[in-house]
Amino acid sequence: MEGTGFPEYKNMIVSKFGGSSLADASQIQKVCDIIIGNSDRKVIVVSAPGVRTANDTKVTDLLIALAKERLFGSNGDVLFNRICERFSDIAIALRIEDVLPVIKNRISDTISLPVSDPDRYMDAVKSLGEYCSAQVVAAYLNRIGIKAVFCEPKEYGLLLSSTFGRVHVLPESYDHLSKLREVDGICVFPGFYGYTPEGQIMTFSRGGSDVTGSILAAAVDAQVYENWTDVDCVYAVNPKLVNHPFPIREITYAEMRELAYAGFTVLHEEALYPAFQKGIPVHIRNTNNPSREGTYIVAKRSIYDSLVTGIAGENGFCTLNIKKYLMNREVGFAVKVLSIIADEGISFEHMPSGIDSISIVLRVSEFSPEKESRIVDRIRKELNIDDVFVNKNLAIVMIVGEAMANTVGTTARAAQALSKAGINLEIINQGASEISVMFGIREEYCNYAVRVLYNEFFNK
Amino acid sequence: MEGTGFPEYKNMIVSKFGGSSLADASQIQKVCDIIIGNSDRKVIVVSAPGVRTANDTKVTDLLIALAKERLFGSNGDVLFNRICERFSDIAIALRIEDVLPVIKNRISDTISLPVSDPDRYMDAVKSLGEYCSAQVVAAYLNRIGIKAVFCEPKEYGLLLSSTFGRVHVLPESYDHLSKLREVDGICVFPGFYGYTPEGQIMTFSRGGSDVTGSILAAAVDAQVYENWTDVDCVYAVNPKLVNHPFPIREITYAEMRELAYAGFTVLHEEALYPAFQKGIPVHIRNTNNPSREGTYIVAKRSIYDSLVTGIAGENGFCTLNIKKYLMNREVGFAVKVLSIIADEGISFEHMPSGIDSISIVLRVSEFSPEKESRIVDRIRKELNIDDVFVNKNLAIVMIVGEAMANTVGTTARAAQALSKAGINLEIINQGASEISVMFGIREEYCNYAVRVLYNEFFNK
Repeated sequence: MEGTGFPEYKNMIVSKFGGSSLADASQIQKVCDIIIGNSDRKVIVVSAPGVRTANDTKVTDLLIALAKERLFGSNGDVLFNRICERFSDIAIALRIEDVLPVIKNRISDTISLPVSDPDRYMDAVKSLGEYCSAQVVAAYLNRIGIKAVFCEPKEYGLLLSSTFGRVHVLPESYDHLSKLREVDGICVFPGFYGYTPEGQIMTFSRGGSDVTGSILAAAVDAQVYENWTDVDCVYAVNPKLVNHPFPIREITYAEMRELAYAGFTVLHEEALYPAFQKGIPVHIRNTNNPSREGTYIVAKRSIYDSLVTGIAGENGFCTLNIKKYLMNREVGFAVKVLSIIADEGISFEHMPSGIDSISIVLRVSEFSPEKESRIVDRIRKELNIDDVFVNKNLAIVMIVGEAMANTVGTTARAAQALSKAGINLEIINQGASEISVMFGIREEYCNYAVRVLYNEFFNK
Repeated sequence: MEGTGFPEYKNMIVSKFGGSSLADASQIQKVCDIIIGNSDRKVIVVSAPGVRTANDTKVTDLLIALAKERLFGSNGDVLFNRICERFSDIAIALRIEDVLPVIKNRISDTISLPVSDPDRYMDAVKSLGEYCSAQVVAAYLNRIGIKAVFCEPKEYGLLLSSTFGRVHVLPESYDHLSKLREVDGICVFPGFYGYTPEGQIMTFSRGGSDVTGSILAAAVDAQVYENWTDVDCVYAVNPKLVNHPFPIREITYAEMRELAYAGFTVLHEEALYPAFQKGIPVHIRNTNNPSREGTYIVAKRSIYDSLVTGIAGENGFCTLNIKKYLMNREVGFAVKVLSIIADEGISFEHMPSGIDSISIVLRVSEFSPEKESRIVDRIRKELNIDDVFVNKNLAIVMIVGEAMANTVGTTARAAQALSKAGINLEIINQGASEISVMFGIREEYCNYAVRVLYNEFFNK
């Protein structure tokens, strides 16, 4: 890069700030203090302003309400003014009033777009919160003497397409976005949206600005993707269930995925995919407490603070159970069963199997009574089975930890702790991932089981 | 039935005697003592004479050797004479020499059949041991004053067909064979063979005379199917591994199936299928020790002598492991994997699954290096996975028991016992059947693990 006139970033950091980090002027000042605190922070991804107080409304929710009003034929002036006011308050407090006409024009132009395609219209209006946040942060950095550039996703080629309602990044985007490395100054990039190849705005269905940050981290080959939020770190267990839970300094992508299955969500998993593919660590940090260590999500662990990394439990599961004498002699039987389930568009994760029986663990939310009756009917008619039945009110509890793979007796210890506590284990599944054990129990024991396991592995 | 002239059997017993029970004259006398000991024993199924001493040869093996000699163009006189001699010795000792011409003619006629279809020829010759045994037993019963009828499978309509090398009973056989109820006297039925609808002899590929007994029990709606062998009962664990193992008085079909997976074979499972379908209990008894209680194989337990019914372990397994980030979002992924395995004609029983990984437990004997390489190649090419690998040298250990389903902590106790013994549990699968837990461990620990579990559940 020498001689190109661009500074060379060997250890580029992509930093994404969530809505609570951008809710008002004082939060934005904290964000900018963080940005300038490390000169490797070259690419900044921002969310729309979040809530300032418990009764406040997120800017994105105001935008959705505004779009709906206009789709129903109202002009939405009250909401328009309320949104502009949020940004005025911020701009005035930060003394960057020059940015206000840009923001107001963009909002005004966007809401005046034709509403012929309501989905595209909604996406365009929803994107405004991130657009304006990025304009504000870029303006403020420049005002305090830090060269910063507002980077519009269209200009840098963040191209999206959608199939079956799921939004995908087009692969050429990574090449386009790698040009961010060459921008003279800090790149401030709005999260949450990109453009179709035809030039229309499209928002991510899930994971919001986290996805943008992950894509940019992959595109510029960042050394780390910082995800700034409002918690000090990720804990080994839901802090609502346990006082002063054990902090996780490091967790792998795989561990996080296993925990997410039982409702322990750190970041949306699909959001992390681009970073995961490039092996870029994700660093979860607290904008309000930046001196804390935070939590690293990594491909490979370098430190182990505990045998078990995390424990999670979630209700809302059931099992679909099939019995057939001599089932295991029938090559392809499981294929037939799982095809019937796939035909209904249902995904499953765990399938404990016996010799003449299989159970398939399903989320009740995906398994509507209509789907259930169609699936059970087809299994009965097509597979000549002895019995099929559904067992509801199941909770899934997971203990997850890379260190468990090399340790004799972790599952035994967990199972023993649960059974001493009087909790019957209807399902135990350990094996495929080596880093997790899944227990199926009755729903009413879910939180209790999580506490029992936490005490077993963290308080002894 | 009153007035038909046939005795009415309310509680008909079908009794099958194995080869060791018919090996010589004194054994046949024991068999006949047993037959006449209970007037409900109406249908008797016999095997070919087994070995008399450690160095002896089974009649069926002599017949196979004879058939091979003749297929290769020799006349096989030496073997012919040796076989006839076995039956002469028996007939002379039992003073039923009249039966000898029948036996010799049948053998002589059969081995003179055309050899144009070697498989059919082999089947016809192999069936002679059972044919002759049944003639001997019927003759001896008649000599001692018990009316007995030799029942030829052709005459009573035991019809078989074969698809893909597996022999099936044609469903109309059951109706034909129900006529055995009306035979005046004890029916002595040769096991192991039946006839094609075209009138050719066909032998069962697996389970031998046990299958015949099971079919007849179903056909005559027996109250019990007695299976007379040379052991007092079935034990809770392989008697080669443990001294004085715990005797099983009652075991369900389902328990037996689960144990059979780990090499604990009582009777061939397919052999039991006709009896299982009708819910007829199977009673395993010892011809040499008929006063012993034996073991009942039942549909539903009436007695529980122990929490765990049986423990078994077997080497020769492996796991096929697949990892793919976000696997669980891909509806139908498992179907694709299992279809590839089914395409190679491989059956599997256990599939521990994680969120982004599945493992499939396979028998190494079914998973040849060629199949392995084709399967792994297809998985790599067709499924866009992160990783696929095979983990060999796995042993499967099962603990099985209907009583476990309602007991908190059995799996925990087993897992704890194994881990205290220093045995790492690579796989734990509990759930689908409720009556078994499967552990996957390194092969070198297999027998040790079985002993550890036996001590835990039977010596405490």
